[in-house]
Amino acid sequence: MTLRYFVYLAYKGTNYHGWQIQPNANTVQAEINKALQTILPEKTTAVGSGRTDTGVHATGQVFHCDLPASYRAERLAHKLNGVLPDDIVVDKVVPVVADAHARYSALSRRYAYRLRFSKSPFSANEYYYLPQKPDFAIMNRACARIMGTHEFTSFSRVKTSVNNFICEVTEARWQDDGDQAVFYITANRFLRGMVRALTGTLLAVGFGKLSLDGFAAIIEAKDRRRAGQSVPPQGLYLCEVRYPEELFIN
Amino acid sequence: MTLRYFVYLAYKGTNYHGWQIQPNANTVQAEINKALQTILPEKTTAVGSGRTDTGVHATGQVFHCDLPASYRAERLAHKLNGVLPDDIVVDKVVPVVADAHARYSALSRRYAYRLRFSKSPFSANEYYYLPQKPDFAIMNRACARIMGTHEFTSFSRVKTSVNNFICEVTEARWQDDGDQAVFYITANRFLRGMVRALTGTLLAVGFGKLSLDGFAAIIEAKDRRRAGQSVPPQGLYLCEVRYPEELFIN
Repeated sequence: MTLRYFVYLAYKGTNYHGWQIQPNANTVQAEINKALQTILPEKTTAVGSGRTDTGVHATGQVFHCDLPASYRAERLAHKLNGVLPDDIVVDKVVPVVADAHARYSALSRRYAYRLRFSKSPFSANEYYYLPQKPDFAIMNRACARIMGTHEFTSFSRVKTSVNNFICEVTEARWQDDGDQAVFYITANRFLRGMVRALTGTLLAVGFGKLSLDGFAAIIEAKDRRRAGQSVPPQGLYLCEVRYPEELFIN
Repeated sequence: MTLRYFVYLAYKGTNYHGWQIQPNANTVQAEINKALQTILPEKTTAVGSGRTDTGVHATGQVFHCDLPASYRAERLAHKLNGVLPDDIVVDKVVPVVADAHARYSALSRRYAYRLRFSKSPFSANEYYYLPQKPDFAIMNRACARIMGTHEFTSFSRVKTSVNNFICEVTEARWQDDGDQAVFYITANRFLRGMVRALTGTLLAVGFGKLSLDGFAAIIEAKDRRRAGQSVPPQGLYLCEVRYPEELFIN
């Protein structure tokens, strides 16, 4: 008899080949599974809400796992943090119904992409450095064009296993914080490489290399070769995964 | 003909064997000298305000160097940042009189020691993690005992080349910021290992392992074997070095 839990965690992705377990590579999921096996009497594995790429960070990743009903789960976060590396930190462990699934039950995901316009020695791998500021007003006008439901084929990697490219975007905005800036985007789903390709293409608009109409035409083209250059992984953060309220027990 | 400059910089010490240049080790000073040699026509070396140990950070380190009078020094900060690694960032370059010396002209130095009571994956090497909070009120009462001029022999490394252990402390206080805390200490000079040994001994007071009178007795003893355990380097920051106003040109 086991009970299912959602585990919320944050990690700095710099030293990992992404979330997903794979042979001969250091991944976040591999560290989590190792930690679970150290702590728990029976083999338990983590099922994540989705992949993050090499060097990409998370402040709100979620995985589910099943624990023996006799296990005192309120101690799990503390115990995991005692054995996990310092760049992976569990925030909370929450009981959910038996068929709740970290990936398939998710309603939406939210990402942030962070820019800095002055270098910071203490967070060198946690933002994308640009020597000049783009025009955020025009970038936010471009963001209005991606709100709603569209086929984002132009912003997906070519090699992908999905059978359609339709995503519903419910938030897309740039926040200008002086010597730094953040792009927030929320959607029901994301295609591989989508946030980094969108961010790079929005920056092309912000630096006057691409017009608003040109940006709209790229979406319409549904052709990956048309999008701008992708931005590097170190600025990207998986911030939040949302689930239906009724999955949570209590 | 050369002109002298003070260069203010910040660095994350995690990947360096401290400030001071040494054979077969990666140090901040070595990176600075290499960067200066890349940029400048003539060989120029950096003379620092003082050493920092392996893993110790700086937000306000200072070095002096001499540049050809014809060199446009206002571009130096930008040029250095273009060639330095991402974890070393130059803040400003300031002209000073010819006999200003980054180490010998300094009036005082200020250090910070940072604690956290919850882990943060994005700054794993930038604080000392403690699972419980100490009693800051009693630690600040102990701080009052180190203010002023004392022989800090009990808080110096045994192997040292100094001929006396007298330091004048003008600031020593703990600031409790909820899930983190900082110890600030300013003095005209510091002995090797002094801040980390003092911090560790103050924490022994804060956790009830040492009384206020016991703390005062350690200072009086002038014996390194009496002090508490040193705290690890990753919480320590060289914050500020102060100089007489008259050294600065303009």
